[in-house]
Amino acid sequence: MSELEGLAERLRRFAQARDWEQFHTPKNLAMALAGEVGELLAEFQWLTPSESSEVMEDPEASGRVRSEVGDVMIFLIRLADILDIDLVQAAHAKLDESEKRYTVEDYRGSARKAPPLA
Amino acid sequence: MSELEGLAERLRRFAQARDWEQFHTPKNLAMALAGEVGELLAEFQWLTPSESSEVMEDPEASGRVRSEVGDVMIFLIRLADILDIDLVQAAHAKLDESEKRYTVEDYRGSARKAPPLA
Amino acid sequence: MSELEGLAERLRRFAQARDWEQFHTPKNLAMALAGEVGELLAEFQWLTPSESSEVMEDPEASGRVRSEVGDVMIFLIRLADILDIDLVQAAHAKLDESEKRYTVEDYRGSARKAPPLA
Amino acid sequence: MSELEGLAERLRRFAQARDWEQFHTPKNLAMALAGEVGELLAEFQWLTPSESSEVMEDPEASGRVRSEVGDVMIFLIRLADILDIDLVQAAHAKLDESEKRYTVEDYRGSARKAPPLA
Repeated sequence: MSELEGLAERLRRFAQARDWEQFHTPKNLAMALAGEVGELLAEFQWLTPSESSEVMEDPEASGRVRSEVGDVMIFLIRLADILDIDLVQAAHAKLDESEKRYTVEDYRGSARKAPPLA
Repeated sequence: MSELEGLAERLRRFAQARDWEQFHTPKNLAMALAGEVGELLAEFQWLTPSESSEVMEDPEASGRVRSEVGDVMIFLIRLADILDIDLVQAAHAKLDESEKRYTVEDYRGSARKAPPLA
Repeated sequence: MSELEGLAERLRRFAQARDWEQFHTPKNLAMALAGEVGELLAEFQWLTPSESSEVMEDPEASGRVRSEVGDVMIFLIRLADILDIDLVQAAHAKLDESEKRYTVEDYRGSARKAPPLA
Repeated sequence: MSELEGLAERLRRFAQARDWEQFHTPKNLAMALAGEVGELLAEFQWLTPSESSEVMEDPEASGRVRSEVGDVMIFLIRLADILDIDLVQAAHAKLDESEKRYTVEDYRGSARKAPPLA
């Protein structure tokens, strides 16, 4: 069992034990994922981009960021599990597209022309 | 190399080849992550919760959902890599907390009392 | 002075008095707006759509929802002020488009065909 | 009728004419609001804060930003109307709190100590 399958399995047991599967529809889990991402945004909103690059050097802020990133991961794993989507495969499939669409020749050094990564 | 490390490494090379590392600050990546989650929400916003549970049976909608989930995964992996956070470890750490906080005895069957999972 | 101008003016004075104008770039304010919307989502994530329609009958939940909606309004007003966008005019302009795009004949009763309102 | 009431009334008629009131639960409208905010974030994600301050000088980008801000306003007005919340009053109530909480003496010049505005 891969580390992602291990996490998905732990979440399944967590929800079952509390009879919370009834709440875990894709719609609800997408909302919860968005709510957690909102909390992550709040950590960076008043920082300059370069201050944000040093956030992990601050003991308090780094703990909060690690915690919010963990929450986002939890809901993404759970949502993908409910939808029966292989997260790693879905990401690689999108990267296959992005590599064709954003060729090195045309996009080198420019984020204006295109949204990087995806 | 685990499947997550493989994805992080591919994203590193993707950004380097295009000289896009300059744009990949935690602040910017958190915004991009939130933008992708917004697109995922749009897939579910007018569906009832039970309709959302059947979304993968629709050939067109399932393709869009898979694509959006892949985008979210891409930016989460890239953000965690830049922050040097181990996603699986961060998620398990939060689950350790949630298992203590939301005991089976107190929270069984009720989402009103507490936000499930995190 | 309209009620929206009054609110924008109060926010201007609030930021000036605290020397917070330096933080109020469009980028930062858009992030703060998204963070507040994330908190609003959290109020509805585990409710069914029909439970969400009764949320204002619950004294505690209604207070939280009113508070989050107020926060969203604050950051939207401040962002629009910084960008020099007339919110009411921008909304009417989009509605002019939506009325042409989503004709009553073609879209009556169907949210599948098109995202309502915008 | 104030300009906000005029907008809310136009949205009511828009939804009634298309029989879309059935989709406009608070839960669904909060998701739609978040989706539109996600599109707004995408406009700013790769810009530096200072580049974001000049976004309205670019004819194309300014049009997109105005359009996204209009969409956010539309869903916020509609959500508040459905919830029977007075947006201007809710915003002033939150500002009353913020003025007490973030005193000029303690918070002048510092966004680290507290999230500005709300």
